Amino acid sequence: MTAKRILALSGGVGGAKLCQGLAQVLPAGKLQVLVNTADDFQHHGLHISPDIDTLLYTLAGLNDTKRGWGLAGESWAVLNALKTLDAETWFQLGDKDLATHLWRSGQLASGATLSELTATLASRLGIAAGIHPMCDNPVRTIVHSPQGDLPFQYYFVKYACKPVVTGFSFEGIEQSSLNREVSDLLAGDGLSAIVLCPSNPFVSLAPILQVANCWHRLRDANVPVLAVSPIIGGQAIKGPAAKMMAELGLPVSAVGVAKHYQQHYPKLVDQWVVDTKDGNLAADIEQLGITTTTTNTVMKNADDRKRLAQFVLDRV
Amino acid sequence: MTAKRILALSGGVGGAKLCQGLAQVLPAGKLQVLVNTADDFQHHGLHISPDIDTLLYTLAGLNDTKRGWGLAGESWAVLNALKTLDAETWFQLGDKDLATHLWRSGQLASGATLSELTATLASRLGIAAGIHPMCDNPVRTIVHSPQGDLPFQYYFVKYACKPVVTGFSFEGIEQSSLNREVSDLLAGDGLSAIVLCPSNPFVSLAPILQVANCWHRLRDANVPVLAVSPIIGGQAIKGPAAKMMAELGLPVSAVGVAKHYQQHYPKLVDQWVVDTKDGNLAADIEQLGITTTTTNTVMKNADDRKRLAQFVLDRV
Repeated sequence: MTAKRILALSGGVGGAKLCQGLAQVLPAGKLQVLVNTADDFQHHGLHISPDIDTLLYTLAGLNDTKRGWGLAGESWAVLNALKTLDAETWFQLGDKDLATHLWRSGQLASGATLSELTATLASRLGIAAGIHPMCDNPVRTIVHSPQGDLPFQYYFVKYACKPVVTGFSFEGIEQSSLNREVSDLLAGDGLSAIVLCPSNPFVSLAPILQVANCWHRLRDANVPVLAVSPIIGGQAIKGPAAKMMAELGLPVSAVGVAKHYQQHYPKLVDQWVVDTKDGNLAADIEQLGITTTTTNTVMKNADDRKRLAQFVLDRV
Repeated sequence: MTAKRILALSGGVGGAKLCQGLAQVLPAGKLQVLVNTADDFQHHGLHISPDIDTLLYTLAGLNDTKRGWGLAGESWAVLNALKTLDAETWFQLGDKDLATHLWRSGQLASGATLSELTATLASRLGIAAGIHPMCDNPVRTIVHSPQGDLPFQYYFVKYACKPVVTGFSFEGIEQSSLNREVSDLLAGDGLSAIVLCPSNPFVSLAPILQVANCWHRLRDANVPVLAVSPIIGGQAIKGPAAKMMAELGLPVSAVGVAKHYQQHYPKLVDQWVVDTKDGNLAADIEQLGITTTTTNTVMKNADDRKRLAQFVLDRV
């Protein structure tokens, strides 16, 4: 165990699971998470930050593990009332969850930054880890498809990932500045390793890595960069990563993911962790010059999360 | 009964009661209500239009008559969740009510006008009367007090009308344009009478009358202008009208109100309706050159509202 800090890059549910394990295994405050905000959006006048909230709720132990997203013990009075108004209800807003969106939207309107507000929420929820939005300016994922361009949440929730994807763009990425605390962490010598969580390579980690082209700084930080494959046995545990790879003409496998990173972010990843199921692929990844280890990467329960977290930490 | 239209000017609860009576007594669509929007405000990132919503909920029969405001059968899951976040909860946002604010805020952000959205909501709620925001641009009541200037909802709700008032201003009133439908109504010959509901003279009806100085147009519309006194026996049924009059050094009576209107909006009001309790004051108001009649103006139930509405209509 190191006294230095671990920086994890995470999207929503899958990444949050590993972060929860890391937070439990590491001493308080050692985990710093840089979170995707490119699927943030405005809905019913509110600012919504799905991945930030997934991290907050999961690390606070407030997430609904059965449903797989949102808050446990949630109620739906507002959503039901929206239905009676014929208002848009494709994005499921729970009552408790809405309180987060309301508070944050009001504070943003008063001039606070998403980073400040996330830190305040994390503190109120008793979270010891640092949760950092990748940037404070709006970056928005646009999914390109033969039907046209779709804002991410329309693709992801409204159209349930059904449209074929032909590519992605991240509006506002050129004007983005990396989260200040993470930027300071990268500039100092307090970092011991960087972990790419098993999040979607195209819509969760790509925007983070491309904020101010920070992947160059991550690569040059002189600490191990370890990635956990989001693809297991040719499938994603959750979400459209595998479907996207197929539609983009990439091999749907842990090797395909590793090659994708090596092509777009050369020499960023030092180590891949792939699932035991994909042990036969380790040699192919090693051929890219990347150390590859195998373990059970499926996180069904708290023990799984802690065990995978410890496995990761033992390697960096 | 006339085939022409009645234009009522209304603030919140008191005005809405008379409008409900008028809507029940008049043929469908004959009632047009011009509603105060100067106590609209932004809260938790949402646009909130308290008087518009009071009119909508009351005319739709959805209002909570016991509590006196908001929706019947309301629940408070979001407000309770906001409390756990240490967020501001002095403005009571019910779950069902929130659906209205969410839908409207989203639509406003998409470029719709408050007038359009109010018409849509009224239609969805099955309201035959026309409900018209006084204007679509933001006008905001500021309450002046020895402690400083207070946005209206801070004075009204957060500080429970406790600060002494020394005056009022309506930010944005100079740039305001009267609601288009009401402007058209005043320009044509389809109007049979104008009714000033028993709403607060200073913070409910004053902003409406001062939008684009429309009280001149109301006065010159060549139809009777009848006002129902908001002060009964030296008191307001609800709200701070009597307290405000005392603090502003005005006589707290139906005569005081009539004189206030005559001073600020000379020759606007043709007829005052005062409560039977104030029958002894009728002569003093008549001395201002204004026809004055008395009836029971307290509206405790549906029969009261219809009876007062019919009394008003019989006089115009």
